[in-house]
Amino acid sequence: MSKQGDGCCEPLSEQPLAAEQAAEMAAVFKALGDPVRLRLLSLIASGPGGEVCVCELTPAFELSQPTISHHLKLLRQAGLVDSERRGTWVYYRVRPETTDRMAVLLAGVGGVRAAA
Amino acid sequence: MSKQGDGCCEPLSEQPLAAEQAAEMAAVFKALGDPVRLRLLSLIASGPGGEVCVCELTPAFELSQPTISHHLKLLRQAGLVDSERRGTWVYYRVRPETTDRMAVLLAGVGGVRAAA
Repeated sequence: MSKQGDGCCEPLSEQPLAAEQAAEMAAVFKALGDPVRLRLLSLIASGPGGEVCVCELTPAFELSQPTISHHLKLLRQAGLVDSERRGTWVYYRVRPETTDRMAVLLAGVGGVRAAA
Repeated sequence: MSKQGDGCCEPLSEQPLAAEQAAEMAAVFKALGDPVRLRLLSLIASGPGGEVCVCELTPAFELSQPTISHHLKLLRQAGLVDSERRGTWVYYRVRPETTDRMAVLLAGVGGVRAAA
Protein backbone atom coordinates (compact mmCIF):
# COMPACT_ATOMS: atom_id res chain seq x y z
CA MET A 1 0.00 0.00 0.00
CA SER A 2 1.26 3.45 -0.78
CA LYS A 3 1.34 6.04 1.94
CA GLN A 4 -0.33 9.31 1.16
CA GLY A 5 0.68 12.14 3.39
CA ASP A 6 -0.51 15.69 2.98
CA GLY A 7 2.32 16.84 0.83
CA CYS A 8 2.97 13.38 -0.55
CA CYS A 9 4.41 12.40 -3.84
CA GLU A 10 7.52 13.17 -5.73
CA PRO A 11 7.78 14.54 -9.24
CA LEU A 12 7.49 11.91 -11.98
CA SER A 13 11.15 12.52 -12.75
CA GLU A 14 12.38 11.44 -9.30
CA GLN A 15 11.99 7.72 -9.90
CA PRO A 16 9.83 5.40 -11.97
CA LEU A 17 6.30 5.33 -10.63
CA ALA A 18 5.22 2.04 -9.04
CA ALA A 19 2.29 0.28 -10.70
CA GLU A 20 -0.06 0.81 -7.78
CA GLN A 21 0.69 4.51 -7.46
CA ALA A 22 0.38 4.93 -11.23
CA ALA A 23 -3.10 3.36 -11.16
CA GLU A 24 -4.17 5.72 -8.39
CA MET A 25 -2.81 8.84 -10.10
CA ALA A 26 -4.10 7.83 -13.53
CA ALA A 27 -7.63 7.61 -12.13
CA VAL A 28 -7.41 11.25 -11.06
CA PHE A 29 -5.98 12.37 -14.40
CA LYS A 30 -8.74 10.44 -16.15
CA ALA A 31 -11.30 12.44 -14.19
CA LEU A 32 -9.53 15.62 -15.34
CA GLY A 33 -9.44 14.36 -18.93
CA ASP A 34 -12.79 15.76 -19.97
CA PRO A 35 -13.48 19.38 -20.99
CA VAL A 36 -16.74 19.65 -19.07
CA ARG A 37 -15.22 18.29 -15.86
CA LEU A 38 -12.22 20.56 -16.22
CA ARG A 39 -14.50 23.58 -16.65
CA LEU A 40 -16.60 22.48 -13.68
CA LEU A 41 -13.46 22.17 -11.56
CA SER A 42 -12.31 25.59 -12.68
CA LEU A 43 -15.72 27.15 -11.90
CA ILE A 44 -15.66 25.57 -8.45
CA ALA A 45 -12.05 26.57 -7.78
CA SER A 46 -12.64 30.15 -8.85
CA GLY A 47 -15.90 30.56 -6.93
CA PRO A 48 -16.13 33.15 -4.13
CA GLY A 49 -14.99 31.52 -0.91
CA GLY A 50 -13.74 28.58 -2.95
CA GLU A 51 -17.16 27.00 -3.24
CA VAL A 52 -20.04 27.03 -5.68
CA CYS A 53 -23.69 26.03 -5.47
CA VAL A 54 -24.72 23.37 -7.98
CA CYS A 55 -27.51 25.79 -8.94
CA GLU A 56 -24.82 28.06 -10.41
CA LEU A 57 -22.95 25.29 -12.18
CA THR A 58 -25.74 23.86 -14.30
CA PRO A 59 -26.66 27.11 -16.10
CA ALA A 60 -23.02 27.56 -17.16
CA PHE A 61 -23.33 24.65 -19.59
CA GLU A 62 -25.69 23.69 -22.36
CA LEU A 63 -26.10 20.30 -20.78
CA SER A 64 -28.84 18.63 -18.79
CA GLN A 65 -28.78 18.68 -15.02
CA PRO A 66 -28.30 14.88 -14.81
CA THR A 67 -25.28 15.14 -17.12
CA ILE A 68 -23.71 17.82 -14.93
CA SER A 69 -24.49 15.75 -11.84
CA HIS A 70 -22.77 12.76 -13.41
CA HIS A 71 -19.62 14.77 -14.12
CA LEU A 72 -19.64 16.19 -10.59
CA LYS A 73 -19.95 12.66 -9.22
CA LEU A 74 -16.87 11.58 -11.17
CA LEU A 75 -14.91 14.58 -9.84
CA ARG A 76 -16.01 13.66 -6.33
CA GLN A 77 -15.10 9.99 -6.75
CA ALA A 78 -11.65 11.02 -7.93
CA GLY A 79 -11.18 13.04 -4.75
CA LEU A 80 -11.02 16.32 -6.65
CA VAL A 81 -14.06 17.95 -5.03
CA ASP A 82 -16.14 17.65 -1.90
CA SER A 83 -19.83 18.35 -1.71
CA GLU A 84 -22.11 19.43 1.11
CA ARG A 85 -25.88 19.76 1.16
CA ARG A 86 -27.17 22.91 2.83
CA GLY A 87 -30.93 23.30 2.65
CA THR A 88 -32.14 22.88 -0.92
CA TRP A 89 -28.76 23.03 -2.60
CA VAL A 90 -25.53 21.11 -2.78
CA TYR A 91 -22.31 23.12 -2.59
CA TYR A 92 -19.02 22.02 -4.12
CA ARG A 93 -15.46 22.88 -3.21
CA VAL A 94 -12.09 21.71 -4.52
CA ARG A 95 -10.00 19.33 -2.43
CA PRO A 96 -6.62 21.07 -2.62
CA GLU A 97 -4.74 18.03 -1.30
CA THR A 98 -5.60 16.20 -4.52
CA THR A 99 -4.85 19.01 -6.98
CA ASP A 100 -1.60 19.71 -5.10
CA ARG A 101 -0.51 16.08 -5.38
CA MET A 102 -1.11 16.12 -9.10
CA ALA A 103 0.73 19.42 -9.49
CA VAL A 104 3.76 18.10 -7.60
CA LEU A 105 3.81 14.98 -9.75
CA LEU A 106 4.06 17.07 -12.91
CA ALA A 107 6.16 19.97 -11.69
CA GLY A 108 9.78 20.18 -12.65
CA VAL A 109 9.64 16.98 -14.68
CA GLY A 110 11.63 18.13 -17.63
CA GLY A 111 13.85 20.89 -16.41
CA VAL A 112 15.58 18.93 -13.70
CA ARG A 113 17.48 16.51 -15.87
CA ALA A 114 18.25 18.29 -19.08
CA ALA A 115 20.69 16.45 -21.32
CA ALA A 116 24.32 17.54 -21.02
CA MET B 1 -7.45 30.83 -30.63
CA SER B 2 -5.71 30.66 -27.33
CA LYS B 3 -2.18 31.91 -26.99
CA GLN B 4 0.32 29.50 -25.54
CA GLY B 5 3.44 31.10 -24.29
CA ASP B 6 6.24 29.23 -22.60
CA GLY B 7 5.05 29.77 -19.09
CA CYS B 8 1.44 30.13 -20.14
CA CYS B 9 -1.63 29.38 -18.20
CA GLU B 10 -3.04 30.43 -14.92
CA PRO B 11 -4.16 28.16 -12.10
CA LEU B 12 -7.68 26.78 -12.50
CA SER B 13 -8.71 28.96 -9.57
CA GLU B 14 -7.82 32.25 -11.29
CA GLN B 15 -10.89 32.34 -13.50
CA PRO B 16 -13.27 29.90 -15.15
CA LEU B 17 -11.54 28.08 -17.98
CA ALA B 18 -12.79 28.92 -21.49
CA ALA B 19 -14.29 26.03 -23.45
CA GLU B 20 -11.51 25.97 -26.01
CA GLN B 21 -8.72 25.98 -23.46
CA ALA B 22 -10.54 23.31 -21.43
CA ALA B 23 -10.71 21.04 -24.48
CA GLU B 24 -7.00 21.46 -25.10
CA MET B 25 -6.02 20.79 -21.49
CA ALA B 26 -8.46 17.90 -21.09
CA ALA B 27 -6.81 16.14 -24.04
CA VAL B 28 -3.48 16.22 -22.20
CA PHE B 29 -5.02 15.00 -18.95
CA LYS B 30 -6.73 12.22 -20.87
CA ALA B 31 -3.35 11.09 -22.15
CA LEU B 32 -2.12 11.06 -18.53
CA GLY B 33 -5.22 9.17 -17.42
CA ASP B 34 -3.84 5.69 -18.00
CA PRO B 35 -1.51 3.79 -15.62
CA VAL B 36 0.74 2.45 -18.38
CA ARG B 37 1.17 5.88 -19.98
CA LEU B 38 1.86 7.47 -16.61
CA ARG B 39 4.52 4.84 -15.85
CA LEU B 40 6.02 5.33 -19.32
CA LEU B 41 6.16 9.08 -18.75
CA SER B 42 7.77 8.54 -15.36
CA LEU B 43 10.35 6.13 -16.82
CA ILE B 44 11.19 8.64 -19.54
CA ALA B 45 11.33 11.59 -17.13
CA SER B 46 13.59 9.74 -14.69
CA GLY B 47 15.92 8.39 -17.36
CA PRO B 48 19.59 9.41 -17.35
CA GLY B 49 19.96 12.60 -19.35
CA GLY B 50 16.18 12.88 -19.39
CA GLU B 51 15.77 10.44 -22.22
CA VAL B 52 15.15 6.74 -22.65
CA CYS B 53 15.52 4.33 -25.53
CA VAL B 54 12.33 2.54 -26.51
CA CYS B 55 14.36 -0.66 -26.15
CA GLU B 56 14.46 -0.02 -22.40
CA LEU B 57 10.79 0.89 -22.09
CA THR B 58 9.23 -2.24 -23.55
CA PRO B 59 10.90 -4.74 -21.15
CA ALA B 60 9.60 -2.74 -18.17
CA PHE B 61 6.04 -3.87 -18.91
CA GLU B 62 4.33 -7.18 -19.48
CA LEU B 63 2.82 -5.82 -22.64
CA SER B 64 3.50 -6.31 -26.32
CA GLN B 65 5.75 -3.94 -28.19
CA PRO B 66 2.85 -2.65 -30.37
CA THR B 67 0.86 -1.86 -27.23
CA ILE B 68 3.74 0.11 -25.76
CA SER B 69 4.20 1.88 -29.11
CA HIS B 70 0.55 2.82 -29.13
CA HIS B 71 0.76 4.36 -25.66
CA LEU B 72 3.94 6.24 -26.61
CA LYS B 73 2.16 7.57 -29.69
CA LEU B 74 -0.67 8.93 -27.52
CA LEU B 75 1.84 10.60 -25.20
CA ARG B 76 3.54 12.15 -28.22
CA GLN B 77 0.26 13.33 -29.75
CA ALA B 78 -0.63 15.01 -26.45
CA GLY B 79 2.65 16.92 -26.56
CA LEU B 80 3.96 15.19 -23.45
CA VAL B 81 6.99 13.56 -25.07
CA ASP B 82 9.20 13.99 -28.10
CA SER B 83 10.86 11.16 -29.96
CA GLU B 84 13.97 10.97 -32.08
CA ARG B 85 15.28 8.08 -34.11
CA ARG B 86 19.02 7.49 -33.81
CA GLY B 87 20.25 4.46 -35.71
CA THR B 88 18.18 1.41 -34.84
CA TRP B 89 16.35 2.88 -31.88
CA VAL B 90 13.90 5.62 -31.06
CA TYR B 91 14.65 7.76 -28.00
CA TYR B 92 11.99 9.53 -25.96
CA ARG B 93 12.20 12.60 -23.76
CA VAL B 94 9.60 14.58 -21.84
CA ARG B 95 8.44 17.95 -23.16
CA PRO B 96 8.70 20.04 -19.99
CA GLU B 97 6.67 22.89 -21.44
CA THR B 98 3.62 20.62 -21.42
CA THR B 99 4.10 19.09 -17.97
CA ASP B 100 4.83 22.57 -16.58
CA ARG B 101 1.60 23.97 -18.04
CA MET B 102 -0.41 21.20 -16.45
CA ALA B 103 1.36 21.67 -13.11
CA VAL B 104 0.62 25.42 -13.13
CA LEU B 105 -3.02 24.76 -13.92
CA LEU B 106 -3.38 22.54 -10.84
CA ALA B 107 -1.04 24.31 -8.44
CA GLY B 108 -2.47 26.38 -5.64
CA VAL B 109 -6.05 25.70 -6.71
CA GLY B 110 -7.51 25.13 -3.30
CA GLY B 111 -5.33 26.99 -0.87
CA VAL B 112 -5.66 30.38 -2.46
CA ARG B 113 -9.30 31.03 -1.75
CA ALA B 114 -10.09 29.28 1.47
CA ALA B 115 -13.51 30.10 2.90
CA ALA B 116 -13.54 32.87 5.48
